[in-house]
Amino acid sequence: MEATAPARDSRVRRRVGSPPGGCQEKSPLERKVYMDYNATTPLEPEVIRVMTEAMREAWGNPSSPYLAGQKAKDIITASREALARMLGGKPQDIVFTSGGTESNNLVIHSAVKHFQETQGPKGAPGEQQSPGKGARPHIITCTVEHDSVRLPLEHLVEEQVAEVTFVPVSTTSGQAEADDILAAVRPSTCLVTIMLANNETGVVMPVSEISQRLKALNQRRVASGLPCVFMHTDAAQVLGKKRVDVEELGVDFLTIVGHKFYGPRIGALYVRGLGKLTPLYPMLFGGGQERNFRPGTENTPMIAGLGKAAELVTENCEAYEAHMQDVRDYLEERLEAEFGRKKIHLNSRFPGAKRLPNTCNFSIQGPQLQGSLVLAQCRTLLASVGASCHSDQGHRPSPVLLSCGVPLDVARNALRLSVGRSTTRADVDLAVQDLKQAVARLEGQA
Amino acid sequence: MEATAPARDSRVRRRVGSPPGGCQEKSPLERKVYMDYNATTPLEPEVIRVMTEAMREAWGNPSSPYLAGQKAKDIITASREALARMLGGKPQDIVFTSGGTESNNLVIHSAVKHFQETQGPKGAPGEQQSPGKGARPHIITCTVEHDSVRLPLEHLVEEQVAEVTFVPVSTTSGQAEADDILAAVRPSTCLVTIMLANNETGVVMPVSEISQRLKALNQRRVASGLPCVFMHTDAAQVLGKKRVDVEELGVDFLTIVGHKFYGPRIGALYVRGLGKLTPLYPMLFGGGQERNFRPGTENTPMIAGLGKAAELVTENCEAYEAHMQDVRDYLEERLEAEFGRKKIHLNSRFPGAKRLPNTCNFSIQGPQLQGSLVLAQCRTLLASVGASCHSDQGHRPSPVLLSCGVPLDVARNALRLSVGRSTTRADVDLAVQDLKQAVARLEGQA
Repeated sequence: MEATAPARDSRVRRRVGSPPGGCQEKSPLERKVYMDYNATTPLEPEVIRVMTEAMREAWGNPSSPYLAGQKAKDIITASREALARMLGGKPQDIVFTSGGTESNNLVIHSAVKHFQETQGPKGAPGEQQSPGKGARPHIITCTVEHDSVRLPLEHLVEEQVAEVTFVPVSTTSGQAEADDILAAVRPSTCLVTIMLANNETGVVMPVSEISQRLKALNQRRVASGLPCVFMHTDAAQVLGKKRVDVEELGVDFLTIVGHKFYGPRIGALYVRGLGKLTPLYPMLFGGGQERNFRPGTENTPMIAGLGKAAELVTENCEAYEAHMQDVRDYLEERLEAEFGRKKIHLNSRFPGAKRLPNTCNFSIQGPQLQGSLVLAQCRTLLASVGASCHSDQGHRPSPVLLSCGVPLDVARNALRLSVGRSTTRADVDLAVQDLKQAVARLEGQA
Repeated sequence: MEATAPARDSRVRRRVGSPPGGCQEKSPLERKVYMDYNATTPLEPEVIRVMTEAMREAWGNPSSPYLAGQKAKDIITASREALARMLGGKPQDIVFTSGGTESNNLVIHSAVKHFQETQGPKGAPGEQQSPGKGARPHIITCTVEHDSVRLPLEHLVEEQVAEVTFVPVSTTSGQAEADDILAAVRPSTCLVTIMLANNETGVVMPVSEISQRLKALNQRRVASGLPCVFMHTDAAQVLGKKRVDVEELGVDFLTIVGHKFYGPRIGALYVRGLGKLTPLYPMLFGGGQERNFRPGTENTPMIAGLGKAAELVTENCEAYEAHMQDVRDYLEERLEAEFGRKKIHLNSRFPGAKRLPNTCNFSIQGPQLQGSLVLAQCRTLLASVGASCHSDQGHRPSPVLLSCGVPLDVARNALRLSVGRSTTRADVDLAVQDLKQAVARLEGQA
């Protein structure tokens, strides 16, 4: 039965640009346009179908030797293969996790542990953590990372367990530049973690360039007995929007987040040559699942859904990208046409920098037009002023935009609109009209 | 549409004792009887329904301020209340996790961190971990805990971060006795973690007695400047089988595992007076969800399902318990009747000890009747020889049974049958017949 309902859903969706079972209400008066796909995405009907099937048919414990368990195990194996195909990696290099936050924390934990085991004084764990004694692991990241990278790193600094360099992004490109990253490397550096694309600006980071240069550097480092610098990227915002290939990127770790590509709220971690080329130190200990790297009875239905979502990306990524880019570019045209080039400041267009095909970060300039005020006046458009985990930030300007060199008064007015697979030009027209009316009301002309 | 299919499922289930969409095949020849409900349970049709609904309707990011997000937030709030009702606790004391393994690891991590912060020398974290310098936190557990408690503790010992006492269970009661636990307390003890019931024997541990005695002890300890000893219990095997009340138990931490009570594969942790009376130190850092105790975009559909599963337990727990006990007792009768009292050794019947209503651990005595051999010969019965995460253990006897004083040759033949809400006496008859034929084949009489 799931097979038919979603099919209908998706036809509706293509027609009126409403996500499945989405925010689109019956009455045209209450009609909503969701443009916050960087915050989360609806589940594809096919994903819901395989998840529901798995809940009904594959509820056995994957560790049980009999049919019900084997059925579940087979689903997990197939999903692992689907994720590997999406990334151009090997199935055995995929570990399922509870989500992107866990994946990012796990990479950081693992890099620190590996440094302590290989560089710290033998037999006295924790010893090298105390000030003065031996070196602490050093990690390099940039100033526009997601909180699930920034906060665990800040925590390690507070705990005096590790040292961290937050490399500022370039104000001309919005990127963390390879030169700046490489310049920050120290003898004690064990990890570089740079997001593949920023969730607010959509700017794509030069991850493969950084990986290549680290690879060259690592050959010299290992020769001289220095620890290898591992490369991690959080690909949460890129999967399903642009093709992601771990070989092209040359990363050691890559974070996968299902709910950003129309999949379920779990995640995974790609680890190049898991346990052989690249060490992974578990944070949790228990029943031996995921080859002890991530114990806990496997969440079969969610894993089934993640596999299906990955399959859809593998099949359709170029089509998704082309569609989103067309709609996003149309959105930027319409904004400039309706408000005038002077009044619209496009915060995420940096000369020379690639960006996500679906993200438009802009400010409508004017004294009373702070992003949160404008959104509050909108009746149709659903969007955000920045990362949704900061929805409490109120009128405070986005630290990400400030890091990118966006002036304070412009950053304060920023809006992040992110379109999806089903967003149409008609949705864009509605959204822009809604914004115009909101601005008119705020400027007291309504 | 989900509403009808599950309803039909559940009628089928009541009739032939097959879990929804379960192992029951169409042809009577292939008919299977699942008696491994301690390994995992099928999802209740109502649980699948609310999860599917949430996937369709509440896919928004709970941190988003608009409708789609608020809908998700409301579901999470309602589930938190449902879990609290099931436990007789407060909603604000519930933290959602990815499962029991994470909940158990989190409690242990938190107890150690709290000890280090409150007892360790200021300003030099890790310092008190190095041998000789200051005290290490001491944790008490028993010898029959699940791997998600045993292994993190063993890891802390290897890492020289903590000291652990594994208190043997009594061979006359199968219980971890309060006297033995209390006798193991040291000045540096910060946590006692004892499962509420064992997954293999079903023996219920005297958790509330231990809690009471620790409470009295803590008053004296705090007065003399010693750290408080927190009490944790892993209730994975008890929820949905016997009423669980955190006030009666008097525990500070309690682990909740959805897939053991017909819910989804996530979990939760109860923490008495979370952050006020009882400290909780997060293992993950990120977007601030779960009041920073457990960040990561909330898994709304799974949380919705967990809430529904908890609601069913709150409403029907006594009925579930009575039904399971009736069927389990009938199973033990039939085993003794069919094989004779001499040949059947009931491994989980300890004089004076309470046990789970659904669990029957027994051995069919005889040289060729190792548990795994018997199960391999079964054509109808689906069961296990012990914890399913150890399905690789082959013919090795269960360490849990050996700890309980079950003789080696008996332990080697052990089978764990655990019945569920839908298991019928007819299923028991089929299972016992199947076992008889299996044993006959093994004894070369077939």
